[in-house]
Amino acid sequence: MNVDEQKKQVGEYAATLIKDNMVVGLGTGSTVKFFVDALGNRIKEENLKIIAVTTSNRTAEQASKLGINIVDINEINEIDITIDGADRVDNEFNGIKGGGAALLQEKIVAINSKKNIWIVDETKIANPLGGFPLPVEVVKYGVQQTIKNLENKLLKPTLRKTKEGEILVTDNGNYIIDLNVVTVDNPKELGEWLSQQVGIVEHGLFINIVDEVIIAGDEIKIIKK
Amino acid sequence: MNVDEQKKQVGEYAATLIKDNMVVGLGTGSTVKFFVDALGNRIKEENLKIIAVTTSNRTAEQASKLGINIVDINEINEIDITIDGADRVDNEFNGIKGGGAALLQEKIVAINSKKNIWIVDETKIANPLGGFPLPVEVVKYGVQQTIKNLENKLLKPTLRKTKEGEILVTDNGNYIIDLNVVTVDNPKELGEWLSQQVGIVEHGLFINIVDEVIIAGDEIKIIKK
Repeated sequence: MNVDEQKKQVGEYAATLIKDNMVVGLGTGSTVKFFVDALGNRIKEENLKIIAVTTSNRTAEQASKLGINIVDINEINEIDITIDGADRVDNEFNGIKGGGAALLQEKIVAINSKKNIWIVDETKIANPLGGFPLPVEVVKYGVQQTIKNLENKLLKPTLRKTKEGEILVTDNGNYIIDLNVVTVDNPKELGEWLSQQVGIVEHGLFINIVDEVIIAGDEIKIIKK
Repeated sequence: MNVDEQKKQVGEYAATLIKDNMVVGLGTGSTVKFFVDALGNRIKEENLKIIAVTTSNRTAEQASKLGINIVDINEINEIDITIDGADRVDNEFNGIKGGGAALLQEKIVAINSKKNIWIVDETKIANPLGGFPLPVEVVKYGVQQTIKNLENKLLKPTLRKTKEGEILVTDNGNYIIDLNVVTVDNPKELGEWLSQQVGIVEHGLFINIVDEVIIAGDEIKIIKK
């Protein structure tokens, strides 16, 4: 199987985990896209009553076209299960997310989900956690001071720009700073430090959030907490 | 002296602390307004070269009319001294700020200042810290989930509205939730907990930030760390 076939297989498998009447969190990314397609098919074929909460405009658009019933996160009590991707994940179930600049919505959806499952390909598994810049969402005001603070902590910050060279602005009106660290040796400690910094809205370390990781490959591999 | 005369006296006193060539942080509030007026007068009369960073549109407007040279916080290296107000302050130099909805900019200015001085009237001194709702700035996305989280922590959250009954939006495009707690018994612990919560951008507890509090009254009272 090529990578796309593997991603499709794992996406379709994840769709089988959704049960009728569930509130489902829909993540973002190339593997999740296959999951949303497969979920759309199941809803049609089996006439499932599913309510979905989305984490990005991109996923919302896809789900809406498939006729999936999308509600605002403020309108539901709790999400039963969220299927999302991750940029990196280690054997301790710590992850890096935010490559797509939606880490804040993704984290809000995740912490309000009873169960979080990530579907990834093998290249996303990293021990120690790393090999991908760690994104943090920051307020615009005083961003240069925030960058200086992160430089002093030796976290190699760079302000993320769009392909067109403009400073990227998130759906929440903030900026993204990528921390170009090679590895995150103590994710919990770094996450707590980042949370305490004034000017940082949220960081892309997902600690103690995911319950199950499904890894694409010639055979699907599932690791549970 | 009536309260306004007292505020004017303390504002004028604070202006005498500013030296030529300083970078000065200008806070917000009714007492700070007198300080900014007095500083404007000194700049004119003594031809001082002062650069100012502001914490709100209101103060920026006042300072600009007085001919004070305002720069963006991103353009300076460090602020020499910031004069601000506070909604409450205790004997341990912990404060509550954010009644004016500018707590995020105020905190960013404060942590980038070598020295922070608050000018307040006597009614702002509170031991234990309290008697004023504790404001937190939160992201719009999932705000009902954030409110639920704060309710579960028994912090009595209410979403702040404008006089016109609309939800108040900060300069950073976020909402303000007021925590209607009577007293904050452990400011450091509560501040750290709030910082760790997903969806909370910043809280109005200013711990270990202010160096000196100047209290208006028939006589000015100064307490230093």
